[in-house]
Amino acid sequence: MKIEVSQADLIKAVNIVSKAVPVRTSMPILESILIDASGNDIKLIANNMELGIKTTVGGKIHEKGIVAIDAKFLTDLVRKIPQNIVTIETDDSFHTTISCEKMVIKVMGKSGEDFPAIPAVSRNEPVVISQLSLRDIIRQTTFSLAQNDNNKMMTGELFDIHENVLKAVTLDGNRISIRFLELSGEAPDNRVVIPGKTLNEIAKILDGGADDLINIFITDNHVIFEFETTTIVSRLIEGDYFQIEHMISNDYETKVTVNKQDFFNTIDRTTIMAKEGDKKPIVFRISDDNFNISIDSAYGSMNEDIDANKEGKDIIIGFNPKYLIDALKVIDDDEITMYMLNSKSPCIIRDEDNTYSYIILPINISSSI
Amino acid sequence: MKIEVSQADLIKAVNIVSKAVPVRTSMPILESILIDASGNDIKLIANNMELGIKTTVGGKIHEKGIVAIDAKFLTDLVRKIPQNIVTIETDDSFHTTISCEKMVIKVMGKSGEDFPAIPAVSRNEPVVISQLSLRDIIRQTTFSLAQNDNNKMMTGELFDIHENVLKAVTLDGNRISIRFLELSGEAPDNRVVIPGKTLNEIAKILDGGADDLINIFITDNHVIFEFETTTIVSRLIEGDYFQIEHMISNDYETKVTVNKQDFFNTIDRTTIMAKEGDKKPIVFRISDDNFNISIDSAYGSMNEDIDANKEGKDIIIGFNPKYLIDALKVIDDDEITMYMLNSKSPCIIRDEDNTYSYIILPINISSSI
Repeated sequence: MKIEVSQADLIKAVNIVSKAVPVRTSMPILESILIDASGNDIKLIANNMELGIKTTVGGKIHEKGIVAIDAKFLTDLVRKIPQNIVTIETDDSFHTTISCEKMVIKVMGKSGEDFPAIPAVSRNEPVVISQLSLRDIIRQTTFSLAQNDNNKMMTGELFDIHENVLKAVTLDGNRISIRFLELSGEAPDNRVVIPGKTLNEIAKILDGGADDLINIFITDNHVIFEFETTTIVSRLIEGDYFQIEHMISNDYETKVTVNKQDFFNTIDRTTIMAKEGDKKPIVFRISDDNFNISIDSAYGSMNEDIDANKEGKDIIIGFNPKYLIDALKVIDDDEITMYMLNSKSPCIIRDEDNTYSYIILPINISSSI
Repeated sequence: MKIEVSQADLIKAVNIVSKAVPVRTSMPILESILIDASGNDIKLIANNMELGIKTTVGGKIHEKGIVAIDAKFLTDLVRKIPQNIVTIETDDSFHTTISCEKMVIKVMGKSGEDFPAIPAVSRNEPVVISQLSLRDIIRQTTFSLAQNDNNKMMTGELFDIHENVLKAVTLDGNRISIRFLELSGEAPDNRVVIPGKTLNEIAKILDGGADDLINIFITDNHVIFEFETTTIVSRLIEGDYFQIEHMISNDYETKVTVNKQDFFNTIDRTTIMAKEGDKKPIVFRISDDNFNISIDSAYGSMNEDIDANKEGKDIIIGFNPKYLIDALKVIDDDEITMYMLNSKSPCIIRDEDNTYSYIILPINISSSI
């Protein structure tokens, strides 16, 4: 194989595919990035068996061929070589010579014959959304994925497509995050669970805006994201997702609207009071005249009133401040509205336009007030 | 005690003194910041027994007093409270109320009576240098302090003042860094070793430029840095510093001048070849026609020629690339000149104006070439 590519194109491609290089693996070949110039294009490929990424890079093929190069090495290399044309050449034994300006590097490549191919998946009707929308959905939901594998389903995100609306859902047992997106094209109904890791890696790759479209193809076992010259194939999580409709009630007795930034600042401030490992709830005391937020901890106490617009019954309710902070961080609106039924039922933060719902379980504070 | 200070002044003062709060200590009181409003000023004080910092903050004293507040808590607090006037009030039992806008925080303070005072040190004739110069000296020398305490003297930086020139020296057994600074005022001769940690903390505090002056007072056991409303007192390291004059020879057989950035880029690039724990030297082959840099490692080999202006004998010499990279990172000149005697003697990088000398021991490569 002998190819010529620019450092700029190479670093972009390596940064994309390196998201699918496993951190730990029992298959050493997966620690490589495959450079495949056996056809008419130069492709870079990485695969951790759950997620596979393939991207095409512009350049010249002087001699067709394939070689697998250690991924960590290649990632370091592309960052530090001169910003110029890079020549990559291999001999029959996969001795690889990488040259750029006056630099000549010789390393051992691998044949790549045992590099597992990215599954060839049949492409049906795609779901089409913009890079901006997908990035927003991921940013606004993945924070409430479960952090450990105890319940595999909780590490995945539901993509539920019904009547041209995508509903994206994550939950971790303490809260549920839901984002709705009206699809512009015609998309068949579907309901799949995508690994959260896949979505977080994709979010790091996407740098396009509202006009840059992604095609999402869904099959029984895989989801494919295609944009520009990149194809990302991920396994789906098998099994039935939680019936969240049963967990959410739209009934409420108290409705409170507050300025998001002020509300965030006050709740964020309560974390000053948290000593390590000491998880004290914050308490909302909401009456017609007043919205009071307080916390008691090993350090002492904090107390603050905030401006609010309240309808319905008075309520006293406690929360883990982290769950509120996480949701408030990703909401882009200036005002948010909370709906509460009683001190033991979940609080729902949702907007009038029905683009998001954040459902947060309260903490029982009956003993502490 | 009852005082009023602005959040902006408070955060600045807390950030300064917090550099002297110990990470670990057997004296719990040292984990506090002392707020001393017993006199006419509001002072914040922290002390880890090696380094003590005192800074005065503007504000109103309604009732004189002293209180010690947990440093971690206070550091979090000043970042998150509203940007407005903060009132801090204590009662006779050191119950402390901190209020700002609608926020009210109650915490337990401590009397501060067992808070160790910063040593009162007699002030003799100061060494006067600008904040910019001191920051540069610290940046350009502390990287070659020893990383562990095996040799206490190597964790300190020599400040050798002789005939109105400050010579600052660090060394770690593999290299020596020297910075010279002509002093503008009249400074008495002196030779002390300042803990490297002290200098690194000071560099974080200094944000002034060439016109902002620092007075440095040196006594038998302490050094005092005074600027604006801040006083930093540090213990000195006792004992005699290394006689570095014996280690450095100005004799050379080879003199090479290179573009600093190109040279840095090439050496930095050789680190691509370094596998974890595999410390291979880079080899310079310098002849009249050519300056070749190469490295062999577990990955393979790299080889690159760079442009150079050479005088004197040809030489083949090996180095730990990290030591060259560290020095090149802090040199601000566009070109650098290296002086070498033979492949076993230290290489000296120094400038014509005699502002710096970086002395780096070579690695024996006779077996590997």
